[in-house]
Amino acid sequence: MNWYESNALNVKQDVMDDAVAHQLTLTKPPGALGALEEVAIKLAGMQGVVKPQLNRINISIFASDHGIAKQGVSAFPQAVTTEMVKNFATGGAAISVLARHLNAQFEVVNLGTIFEVDKHPQIIDARIAAGTQDFSSAPAMDDGQLQLALQQGCDAAQRAQNNKSQLFIGGEMGIGNTSSASALAAAQLNLPAATLVGMGTGISEDQLPLKIKLIEKALTLHSSNDPVEQLKSLGGFEIAGLVGAYIRCAQLGVPVLVDGFISSVAALMAVAINASIAPWLLFSHESSEPGHQLVLAALKAKPLLNIGMRLGEGSGAAIVVSLMQSACALHNEMATFSQAGVSEKEV
Amino acid sequence: MNWYESNALNVKQDVMDDAVAHQLTLTKPPGALGALEEVAIKLAGMQGVVKPQLNRINISIFASDHGIAKQGVSAFPQAVTTEMVKNFATGGAAISVLARHLNAQFEVVNLGTIFEVDKHPQIIDARIAAGTQDFSSAPAMDDGQLQLALQQGCDAAQRAQNNKSQLFIGGEMGIGNTSSASALAAAQLNLPAATLVGMGTGISEDQLPLKIKLIEKALTLHSSNDPVEQLKSLGGFEIAGLVGAYIRCAQLGVPVLVDGFISSVAALMAVAINASIAPWLLFSHESSEPGHQLVLAALKAKPLLNIGMRLGEGSGAAIVVSLMQSACALHNEMATFSQAGVSEKEV
Repeated sequence: MNWYESNALNVKQDVMDDAVAHQLTLTKPPGALGALEEVAIKLAGMQGVVKPQLNRINISIFASDHGIAKQGVSAFPQAVTTEMVKNFATGGAAISVLARHLNAQFEVVNLGTIFEVDKHPQIIDARIAAGTQDFSSAPAMDDGQLQLALQQGCDAAQRAQNNKSQLFIGGEMGIGNTSSASALAAAQLNLPAATLVGMGTGISEDQLPLKIKLIEKALTLHSSNDPVEQLKSLGGFEIAGLVGAYIRCAQLGVPVLVDGFISSVAALMAVAINASIAPWLLFSHESSEPGHQLVLAALKAKPLLNIGMRLGEGSGAAIVVSLMQSACALHNEMATFSQAGVSEKEV
Repeated sequence: MNWYESNALNVKQDVMDDAVAHQLTLTKPPGALGALEEVAIKLAGMQGVVKPQLNRINISIFASDHGIAKQGVSAFPQAVTTEMVKNFATGGAAISVLARHLNAQFEVVNLGTIFEVDKHPQIIDARIAAGTQDFSSAPAMDDGQLQLALQQGCDAAQRAQNNKSQLFIGGEMGIGNTSSASALAAAQLNLPAATLVGMGTGISEDQLPLKIKLIEKALTLHSSNDPVEQLKSLGGFEIAGLVGAYIRCAQLGVPVLVDGFISSVAALMAVAINASIAPWLLFSHESSEPGHQLVLAALKAKPLLNIGMRLGEGSGAAIVVSLMQSACALHNEMATFSQAGVSEKEV
């Protein structure tokens, strides 16, 4: 058995029941805080304490290049993956700004940019290859490469636990990776590529048919129902890294907050590989990438935010952390009816 | 001319144009931060600086009782208004917890609870009467009372400006006030009460027809197209307080973040009284109260959050502040393409 097939830890149902009971004592109409109540209750079950905390956030960004990018499926040149790895580390990217404000543990795991990146304390150089193969004509990676990428995710999850992180956010960067994610979702959900493919970073209407055609070609070339095979033939190193990280977090008991379309596809593949991890995944936002809605529906996920974000990098998840922190603060700090001397509901 | 008829300040269009141009230089695909980009751009126009700040938040809660509550239109006893005023001040209510975490300037303006409240540094005792009259049989307030309530809102806005607040949040508390807000929205939007009335704090299905019937009766009794007349005959002191505060904020140039259903109805009335204030209103969330969607549509408002909150007190707005602070941080602190040496879009 591979490490990623072992069962996740159990979420503590008795603590969740206590958290539900606690919510009903707080000075507000029952249910009036909407989804924030569920967030606090779920975190209570995951952390095993009635009053959960979200002070220690881990953000691990996985970056890698994609062979498919050569076909012209992105609005940006492939060099941008390498350039953005530097931008993450030096603090200028969106996720860097958000990580700083969250005082998060922050790292970038380079799994395979086409160019080398200078050493930097926040960059882990774990390049498996100079990008994946073009999946429209060959498997994106071989077995050994897939195992390496999964293991890098596993290691990131372990570092998060070692740092006593109360929440794990995985981010991704890779020019061409909405193509890879769309192909994976199409294969896993057995849907035509056209229902899942969107504008990514902002390709033109002209480029869209090419993107769909290449994915359809790949789906014919690599037909398998096995999620591990799908990940190998259609995935990216950074997507496999996320899959490994999500699975390991669930095995270690670290709650996961999933970002946008590509991260949600990684969550879809992770759950397909190991269904026991599902209760450990929280979902942050619905992006404007059309496939995201279908992937979220398949995961029965109801994210908190829908404001048209489509950046990746873990940025949507990082934005949502503050909402979850508010959910915890309300759950933990509000007065009860008896403490405040407030009369309860009459009917 | 009454003070509330004077024009609002102009939002600075040239600064907004500069903010739009700045957004396009940041290391992300154009538009990839979705609605967060608009938030930063709008705040830039209101604050008159390309890089807006949201460090100083003002939260003013207006509280008052409603004559209509005697008819049994709420799930909670009327004493709860008074009890919650104390709970706000002593730090146990949802909005108190959120205000503390935002390090906000926080005050409770008591415009007319049925019971007296002990003195407290965070409570302004401005009781106009022991609640309004029952609007199903008489005008809720007289002219002098309406002017006093509007003036209290005006004074709160002035205090916010004196404190150099960069954002004004108004909250409300008043058992029975979804009835008043529904009646105002029905009158202003010329819609049947049944399309706007919801469960409020959680009334039973049995109580709903009574709530609708009383509002329909009031709409027949007090038929006027004048928003000031509508506010007087159907409003609450706390709703009028919000109306006065919103209008004065716009006249002073303090951006307003509107909370849920009742606050949005106050915004609707404020814009009906003085249309020039509209550009100063930002909208935070869509509540689960059914009338809210109709009121937001009438205001052409697109709130950031929709997570089934229905608490009032300004709580939804306070939750959304952190999203807006993230919007400012990203806008102000991200590296530009040239700073980071990242290649720009090809197509």
